[in-house]
Amino acid sequence: MPEKQQISPLVTLTTDLGTSDHYVAVLKAVMLGINPAIQFVDISHHIPPQDIMACAWVVKNAAFYFPKGTVHLVAVDPTTGTNRKPLAVKIKDQLFVGPDNGAFSLIADQNEAEIFELSKEEFWGKISSNTFHARDIFAPIAAHLASGVALDWIGKKVESMMNYRWAIPTDDHDSLNGWVVHIDRFGNLITNISKSLVGSASSGRTSKVYAGNTIITGISSAYANVPESEALAYFNSSDMLEIAINKGNAQQMLGVEKGTSVTVLFKD
Amino acid sequence: MPEKQQISPLVTLTTDLGTSDHYVAVLKAVMLGINPAIQFVDISHHIPPQDIMACAWVVKNAAFYFPKGTVHLVAVDPTTGTNRKPLAVKIKDQLFVGPDNGAFSLIADQNEAEIFELSKEEFWGKISSNTFHARDIFAPIAAHLASGVALDWIGKKVESMMNYRWAIPTDDHDSLNGWVVHIDRFGNLITNISKSLVGSASSGRTSKVYAGNTIITGISSAYANVPESEALAYFNSSDMLEIAINKGNAQQMLGVEKGTSVTVLFKD
Amino acid sequence: MPEKQQISPLVTLTTDLGTSDHYVAVLKAVMLGINPAIQFVDISHHIPPQDIMACAWVVKNAAFYFPKGTVHLVAVDPTTGTNRKPLAVKIKDQLFVGPDNGAFSLIADQNEAEIFELSKEEFWGKISSNTFHARDIFAPIAAHLASGVALDWIGKKVESMMNYRWAIPTDDHDSLNGWVVHIDRFGNLITNISKSLVGSASSGRTSKVYAGNTIITGISSAYANVPESEALAYFNSSDMLEIAINKGNAQQMLGVEKGTSVTVLFKD
Repeated sequence: MPEKQQISPLVTLTTDLGTSDHYVAVLKAVMLGINPAIQFVDISHHIPPQDIMACAWVVKNAAFYFPKGTVHLVAVDPTTGTNRKPLAVKIKDQLFVGPDNGAFSLIADQNEAEIFELSKEEFWGKISSNTFHARDIFAPIAAHLASGVALDWIGKKVESMMNYRWAIPTDDHDSLNGWVVHIDRFGNLITNISKSLVGSASSGRTSKVYAGNTIITGISSAYANVPESEALAYFNSSDMLEIAINKGNAQQMLGVEKGTSVTVLFKD
Repeated sequence: MPEKQQISPLVTLTTDLGTSDHYVAVLKAVMLGINPAIQFVDISHHIPPQDIMACAWVVKNAAFYFPKGTVHLVAVDPTTGTNRKPLAVKIKDQLFVGPDNGAFSLIADQNEAEIFELSKEEFWGKISSNTFHARDIFAPIAAHLASGVALDWIGKKVESMMNYRWAIPTDDHDSLNGWVVHIDRFGNLITNISKSLVGSASSGRTSKVYAGNTIITGISSAYANVPESEALAYFNSSDMLEIAINKGNAQQMLGVEKGTSVTVLFKD
Repeated sequence: MPEKQQISPLVTLTTDLGTSDHYVAVLKAVMLGINPAIQFVDISHHIPPQDIMACAWVVKNAAFYFPKGTVHLVAVDPTTGTNRKPLAVKIKDQLFVGPDNGAFSLIADQNEAEIFELSKEEFWGKISSNTFHARDIFAPIAAHLASGVALDWIGKKVESMMNYRWAIPTDDHDSLNGWVVHIDRFGNLITNISKSLVGSASSGRTSKVYAGNTIITGISSAYANVPESEALAYFNSSDMLEIAINKGNAQQMLGVEKGTSVTVLFKD
């Protein structure tokens, strides 16, 4: 008979703390002090400092692949020490802990969120500061949630949180107008134009994609559909329209930055 | 009845080995070969090459948050292959393994250290080189210590180690004079002036903080106490005086580097 | 009686995905969804984008330190979405999973490789894309292999894979001619000239090492054998000839790049 597999509680971390300083290790040490069985997955510690939208983008694209009940510590927190609320939020079957700065509404996107304000200070850490709530509040709460403490023990349910929404592309029947919301390590340009939006707007017409000074005819299914060093548009692994150079760096070669507008033009 | 929670032995790593090459993975592989249950926490692998003081700073600020008995592999080792001693050191309830190059005395700071020279080669690795003692000596010893082997099995107690001390700010009654000892990812300027030193030196007088060409009146309790893009001084999450820009980068905006002197001037 | 130590399945990851985006976390989430007990060791995610040779170099120098049966996910995959084969390969007592792009033959080096084409789609992930086979094929297969699924369940044995070989230095009796194949974080210049090759070619003669404009007399056994800021040649921790500056950066100070030729000249 196989031994019963014991499952470790799982906590992911997404921060702008970098990996040169001691900060991330301190968060993990605090959590291991509460539950030494916790297993960590670092999503990213290289979110640009204080960039809440980049943080939400990365978490949103990673979190829902994790096993049910995974706790996600989301600590890009430029307003640490102010009276912005500390929160724990349940979205689908995942738990998120961090400051009420709009990141969670972006992660929730179209999904429902159960929101809890972290009001029970007995679950916070023993140390308290105004400059490192990730250590003093969010890490202890994440460790308790990962250990099975219920959301309504560590906080009180509230109706709302800071409400940001991903910008929605405009649709004028003959074209979709969106923009570059993220550029990854490869220089690939990720837009806010989804596969389903293009599908419904195109009505079977052919597409041309305009980004900066570049015009791309058609939407490819793989990098190798175009010759090396040529630009292509395709739906990426998250089903968003993305622009890349086959074996090249689109950001550098096309001179496009985050925020650049991207148009999909339909033709019969 | 809840299952007995089995606790993994915990080893942290702090090195200047970077994360591009194979070196860190080799250290972990060697340790897992000795005890496959070891759990790792990377404190940092981005210590500037051969910078013993930066290494000690980062370890000192992380290590004492960890559960009792955690083993810290500290391998910034520019003198690898010379006759500098390999050590294991107990400070408070934490264990440290690495070369005798002054880092441990800086980590110990004011605390007592029990020092063991790693004299029992039967606990070293099977491979031996003059260029990678982290792999050949420190990783195997760390794995054995994490597995419960006692300090006096793996070495012999010695009385002293290379003795560096953190520089102490000068106090001329009307001012404290220290300097910037670390700059973090956010460009925050961390000084060697502690909250308790300012508390005892100020005798209730008000403070002005001078750093480079910048003068800051008063010590704040949170970033948001000053308008965005303005400088503030505050005691950080380790209770050291720190200078920052609210939602900005103090290193860049104030043109201050590591080593710049910082003065706290007291006025009635 | 000591408790039976339960051993976690071990998966390493080597990619060019970086650590800023969500990609690596998605790979780990997918694997934890298949087996929540898997423990990860990141070898490197900072392989230069699409650099198969650098990827193979790093994996080859790390993998064989790991415990028997460790699974290595090797996903530098510029031809993702083409008809290049997905593979699992057994080399010595280690398992490797990734695309058939030549990396595995470089890792195998002189060793025999058992090669399996990943033909059983029931072991792939539920999502499928043409742009992220690491998520859709390699991560699920790695998780299954780490959980004890046999190689011939997840694929069919094939005879060959894309065959690259490390370039071999030339030997003209009085000299060996190789080149710099890797430069590490410290700026150390790692060559393709092995200790055993120098041993057999030198026949006891003395050596001079030429690299760019630098001439080094003799081969040292430790950095400290030469004064600070001077160049030395030595056999590194992998027994390959390496050129370094004692407490300095050879790449910067000698102006040498990857690919620069290195000659070892023998004199009676």
